Amino acid sequence: MHPFDQAIDLEPISAGLWRGHTSEHYWNFVSPYGGVTGAALLNAILKSPERIGDPLTLTINYAAPIERGPFTVTARPLRSTRTTQHWALQLMQGDDPAPYASAVSVFAVRRSTWNLTEAVPPDVRHLQASEQSLPFPNLRWPAMYEMRYVRGNAMVENEDSLTYSWIRDAQPRDLDYASLASVCDAFFPRIFLRRPQLVPVGTVSLNIYFHVDAAALARQGTHAVLAVARANIFSQGYFDQQGEIWGQDNRLLATTQQIVWYKE
Amino acid sequence: MHPFDQAIDLEPISAGLWRGHTSEHYWNFVSPYGGVTGAALLNAILKSPERIGDPLTLTINYAAPIERGPFTVTARPLRSTRTTQHWALQLMQGDDPAPYASAVSVFAVRRSTWNLTEAVPPDVRHLQASEQSLPFPNLRWPAMYEMRYVRGNAMVENEDSLTYSWIRDAQPRDLDYASLASVCDAFFPRIFLRRPQLVPVGTVSLNIYFHVDAAALARQGTHAVLAVARANIFSQGYFDQQGEIWGQDNRLLATTQQIVWYKE
Repeated sequence: MHPFDQAIDLEPISAGLWRGHTSEHYWNFVSPYGGVTGAALLNAILKSPERIGDPLTLTINYAAPIERGPFTVTARPLRSTRTTQHWALQLMQGDDPAPYASAVSVFAVRRSTWNLTEAVPPDVRHLQASEQSLPFPNLRWPAMYEMRYVRGNAMVENEDSLTYSWIRDAQPRDLDYASLASVCDAFFPRIFLRRPQLVPVGTVSLNIYFHVDAAALARQGTHAVLAVARANIFSQGYFDQQGEIWGQDNRLLATTQQIVWYKE
Repeated sequence: MHPFDQAIDLEPISAGLWRGHTSEHYWNFVSPYGGVTGAALLNAILKSPERIGDPLTLTINYAAPIERGPFTVTARPLRSTRTTQHWALQLMQGDDPAPYASAVSVFAVRRSTWNLTEAVPPDVRHLQASEQSLPFPNLRWPAMYEMRYVRGNAMVENEDSLTYSWIRDAQPRDLDYASLASVCDAFFPRIFLRRPQLVPVGTVSLNIYFHVDAAALARQGTHAVLAVARANIFSQGYFDQQGEIWGQDNRLLATTQQIVWYKE
């Protein structure tokens, strides 16, 4: 079993209730890597027998550091039509009545329509890829990815926070909705591109829009995706970052935003 | 009472339960304008006695067309610390056990930190503002705003979907978190900037990050904000749009994203 599949694995307890376990492979400073937590939440919907369609949106609010060990996920469909389904999710641990993460998600059946991609991926053909890891050599989860940056260096005072990076699972695995969700959190925290100083940071909220159907996603296989990310603002303890995930044939797979807490 | 305050007004029923009523002023095609629905949901938190801090994030998933008449809002704080609070909300109507909208929100106490605004507002000094209304002359809610576009024309095949527009309440009202949330939904649907053809559209999910504290927001007063918006992709029945709301002194008040259903 691929470590990612192990990390997001859920066992059914009862209708709408699932049991998972944190993964050492994807451990962050004090809790699991947020991308894998998001993927585990999405997985609860993906595994639900009443699921309609494929992921369209996923918003995860991280309320408290998840502790090592088992957790449960509640996944409730709030309203369904023939083509869309609205979900609410919570991640719980131990006897704590308060969730460690809450999420909402929309699933949808995609259809043939007039289509247009307006965003343009960066031309990275002339750029040299560099192996670059997060500025925390002892962290576990970044080693689970092969990340090659072609623009932007962490822990340097860059002119802007814009980065381009190639990313895929270090141990090859076909991209699917769950791993695409996880990749949406795999950017360097933007503050480390503007201020070369280690300060505590933590994602508060992560938002993902999925722009591909399952067939198009399957064509990505184990190829690296091109991740583009930048921040708009660092203000009073919170900065944002927005990103694009580009796949084979210049296909925009997902757009994503998050807001991150930082100290000082 | 300003029609906006009337539209988002909530009366307490019991702890965490509020009653509101749809507004004719902000009526859209078949349901209230989504920005006002978002503002009403946010208002339930703003009015809650246990509220900590100010809005940081708001994500609203629109599950079904809200009908004319009364509605209830449930607003539950899921987890609180001294400086952050995570909320879950639902908008219900009649005897329907399924919510018409679901939302999650994070409130936070902002603090003094190192700050930096990386995004740059467009230079619109040399651009002529044009009165421009939505391509639906009979709609009620657009008349509640004074919207002056300085880039982009609706119902024309533009080269891109990027628009700049000045926007404020037609009947002057000081900007606050609720009206800022509402403004985040007041862009032309991007599809009408790329394809001059009227098709049904509807916001599925709206995400807002607030970047100002209450004191800075208060300085905006009744001045118009500068709204920047563009789409990344129109694909298989769903397009996204992302926006920035700029205030006085080039201050970034909010960033926002949404994903919109469209027909054909």
